[in-house]
Amino acid sequence: MRRVLKFRRWLYVNLHPTGWTKRGLSPLNKIIVGVITAAVVVAILESEPSLHAGNEHLFLAAELVFASIFLVEYLARLWASAEDPVYGGGLRGYLRYALSLPALVDLLAVSTLFLTFFGNETSILRLVRLARILLLAKLGRYSTALRAIGHAVRSRRYELVMSAVIAGMLLLVSSTLLYIVEGELQPEDFGSIPRAMWWSIATLTTVGYGDAIPVTAVGRMIAGVTAITGIGLIAMPTGILAAAFSDALQHQRAAREKDDDHPTA
Amino acid sequence: MRRVLKFRRWLYVNLHPTGWTKRGLSPLNKIIVGVITAAVVVAILESEPSLHAGNEHLFLAAELVFASIFLVEYLARLWASAEDPVYGGGLRGYLRYALSLPALVDLLAVSTLFLTFFGNETSILRLVRLARILLLAKLGRYSTALRAIGHAVRSRRYELVMSAVIAGMLLLVSSTLLYIVEGELQPEDFGSIPRAMWWSIATLTTVGYGDAIPVTAVGRMIAGVTAITGIGLIAMPTGILAAAFSDALQHQRAAREKDDDHPTA
Amino acid sequence: MRRVLKFRRWLYVNLHPTGWTKRGLSPLNKIIVGVITAAVVVAILESEPSLHAGNEHLFLAAELVFASIFLVEYLARLWASAEDPVYGGGLRGYLRYALSLPALVDLLAVSTLFLTFFGNETSILRLVRLARILLLAKLGRYSTALRAIGHAVRSRRYELVMSAVIAGMLLLVSSTLLYIVEGELQPEDFGSIPRAMWWSIATLTTVGYGDAIPVTAVGRMIAGVTAITGIGLIAMPTGILAAAFSDALQHQRAAREKDDDHPTA
Amino acid sequence: MRRVLKFRRWLYVNLHPTGWTKRGLSPLNKIIVGVITAAVVVAILESEPSLHAGNEHLFLAAELVFASIFLVEYLARLWASAEDPVYGGGLRGYLRYALSLPALVDLLAVSTLFLTFFGNETSILRLVRLARILLLAKLGRYSTALRAIGHAVRSRRYELVMSAVIAGMLLLVSSTLLYIVEGELQPEDFGSIPRAMWWSIATLTTVGYGDAIPVTAVGRMIAGVTAITGIGLIAMPTGILAAAFSDALQHQRAAREKDDDHPTA
Repeated sequence: MRRVLKFRRWLYVNLHPTGWTKRGLSPLNKIIVGVITAAVVVAILESEPSLHAGNEHLFLAAELVFASIFLVEYLARLWASAEDPVYGGGLRGYLRYALSLPALVDLLAVSTLFLTFFGNETSILRLVRLARILLLAKLGRYSTALRAIGHAVRSRRYELVMSAVIAGMLLLVSSTLLYIVEGELQPEDFGSIPRAMWWSIATLTTVGYGDAIPVTAVGRMIAGVTAITGIGLIAMPTGILAAAFSDALQHQRAAREKDDDHPTA
Repeated sequence: MRRVLKFRRWLYVNLHPTGWTKRGLSPLNKIIVGVITAAVVVAILESEPSLHAGNEHLFLAAELVFASIFLVEYLARLWASAEDPVYGGGLRGYLRYALSLPALVDLLAVSTLFLTFFGNETSILRLVRLARILLLAKLGRYSTALRAIGHAVRSRRYELVMSAVIAGMLLLVSSTLLYIVEGELQPEDFGSIPRAMWWSIATLTTVGYGDAIPVTAVGRMIAGVTAITGIGLIAMPTGILAAAFSDALQHQRAAREKDDDHPTA
Repeated sequence: MRRVLKFRRWLYVNLHPTGWTKRGLSPLNKIIVGVITAAVVVAILESEPSLHAGNEHLFLAAELVFASIFLVEYLARLWASAEDPVYGGGLRGYLRYALSLPALVDLLAVSTLFLTFFGNETSILRLVRLARILLLAKLGRYSTALRAIGHAVRSRRYELVMSAVIAGMLLLVSSTLLYIVEGELQPEDFGSIPRAMWWSIATLTTVGYGDAIPVTAVGRMIAGVTAITGIGLIAMPTGILAAAFSDALQHQRAAREKDDDHPTA
Repeated sequence: MRRVLKFRRWLYVNLHPTGWTKRGLSPLNKIIVGVITAAVVVAILESEPSLHAGNEHLFLAAELVFASIFLVEYLARLWASAEDPVYGGGLRGYLRYALSLPALVDLLAVSTLFLTFFGNETSILRLVRLARILLLAKLGRYSTALRAIGHAVRSRRYELVMSAVIAGMLLLVSSTLLYIVEGELQPEDFGSIPRAMWWSIATLTTVGYGDAIPVTAVGRMIAGVTAITGIGLIAMPTGILAAAFSDALQHQRAAREKDDDHPTA
């Protein structure tokens, strides 16, 4: 029994980021990140028909392996959560962990992966495809980059909302104007405000697909003004976020270097 | 009579931004902003033929409701303006308020909304469409973002005019050069300077629709130089505005936090 | 005779920027800037065949008027240059002024404008078109914006050359790679390095016309890497120039404000 | 014998950047940079069929001249490397130099240039084309710009990796979503995740070729969100790199100016 508990302790320390007191990821977590990355790459390649055709059995085998690994990982994390003072073990502790966001994401990813082995193809094709994004979400647990961007967005909440309001107004005004000017001439592209918005967003972000283009002189003048004011207004959240993100990373780096000076035992 | 005056006082405090001494919007103004937003969304959806067809009565009913609300709002604001020391009441005071910019915008928005119920379709279609932008203009009364951008533009007036002059010259030089080089080959796209400007503005803003493209070697060299110098020159007002906008928002935030420390009674 | 000399003195003070000791432009120069702007606008509109057809006489009259004004301006500046201590008058002084860059630009602009009235259409069409850019060059005399950008470019000479070298290398490497990968498949767009450069410059500047696009998997990977590294590398001169331009304008503003405190007599 | 050694000393000082104690490049190296540039320009022009046709002998002669010059340069550098205290001469010293990266690049460039004179056209066409990039790589020895960018990338390693992770996730999420939404409708452009990535990278970098475009309402909404978040996320490495590059150049300039104050003998 003691050896079992010792193993659970080892699992907790090596699996849960809160259990690992040294810097970086534990070796076990590094392996899991590797497996997730491999599963993502396999899922991406599998979606390509020219690669999938003829290799169905290979891909199925790989999926089965990944699904098994993630199932074992899910159960191990669940069991080891008893060592976490936050959950504390017991039926209530296990349930509390099972309902936490990272655990739910893990469960969903495993379920969709296993579901692909049952039922007929068409009905669960959508599920299989969604599994690809869920695999990425599994990585969220480890990502300091995502935490940095979350911090950056929160710290400049006010400026970003302001920029969004202005950008939204610009989007509405420009698409309404082009709907008025070109709506009758090009009903397919500018025949309603939502349709004109597709052109407007492509112009304001300077993507410029070129599938919807004003043809009248007045429409082109409005388009020119939209493009010019657009780069100014859209650049604002960019500048704000870049500065905030840079600040957040500086903080993380400073905290990390402080950690190096006073390492935790 | 006293209860009527008290009600007018309450309306003034809750409707006019100058009357509301606490931070943010009054509850009544929050409701009005919500109604305007709803009216804008309905107007956007209504413009889409595939949504409009079959739901004409629904949209007409919604428009009637919005028009009535905005009419009541207009009259209430007009009546309550007597409490504003700036207008002071009396026939002259009411007239002075009615001729102020926000009141005129409100009146125009209400009028165009009501005009859609009379006359035949084709003659007032343009009016109906314009109403959509006027609804947005009604929001201008509340927008601190618009005030911030107005402040930012004014504070860097000089730099922005300089950038505009340089950008304008670059626009003219590049479109004249392409008109000279490609004018005979592609009369539709480069057959005159105004026509070449459409290409030039799409290139300078890096939108790049791709509908007008130089085909000769010389034309492409000029286009390459235009694209490179363009991103440099157009980036300037962007950088200037972003910095100014950031400053303006910082000021607003500082002022707001100062307000929180010394709340007005 | 004294009245003639007094008039020449007045002309010098009002026409030559060095002669005008107060801030801004002299009233006479403001009028000239207005006439140049009008001539540019007329030249732009004239190039549009749909506007030119039927209004040939109108445009010819306008051109004659502008040409006469600029001829008088040229002669007046030449005569008044004798008052400028730099040129000092006399045959040598007049010649020295006539050979200065602004005077040569003026002369060329007047000549091309007058040449349009003689000869047959086809032989001098090119000259007429060039006159449009020369009219803009006439404005160079007054432009503080152009001086600011010249100062900005000079002050960051070293950084800009570095950026240009890196951008040039990136342009060459990406177009050579795509020429190797897609040259045989799409000889029209990638059949030689200069051809592939057209695609490369459109991608590096994120203009993305979409007329030349890689179709192979390898070609698209290279294109993706080009687009990503491109926005990083092209952003550098932008950032450098924006900062330098902002500095240069700050200096001009500071100098102007100092001028206001200690006005020259 | 002494004169031979003296000549080798002169070659070392004038050819190897470590041997040249004064600022900038030695006159001999300046000539070599010029010859490399000329060879690159000739290689670019040669790739254009319309220029190559009829001038085959001219281009062949130029290539022979360049190949001979680079062969002599390679041998001279090899011989002079004996003067470099790092390599020290002797068979081991020559071998050590011959296996250093710059020497290998030189050897490869010379080899590919000479290989174009032998064998039949089709089998070595690929080699000839690669020679064009190798010629550029020869310039790497001198480039302070490349060293500056290398330094900039290293100093912001952490931030750049973070940005790359976020950009990669955004790329994956957006292409998976569009694959789910538009995969069945447009199998050619969105029929697999790798295919959808081509659209995604063109949108995230705001290049916007316009060859692959979502057509459904949901797909266009996702595309709009992708474009907006994309400009924010892709702008981050741009801002980070621009700042780092600016710092690195400042350091180089400061070091250079310090050099001018205390010139080495």
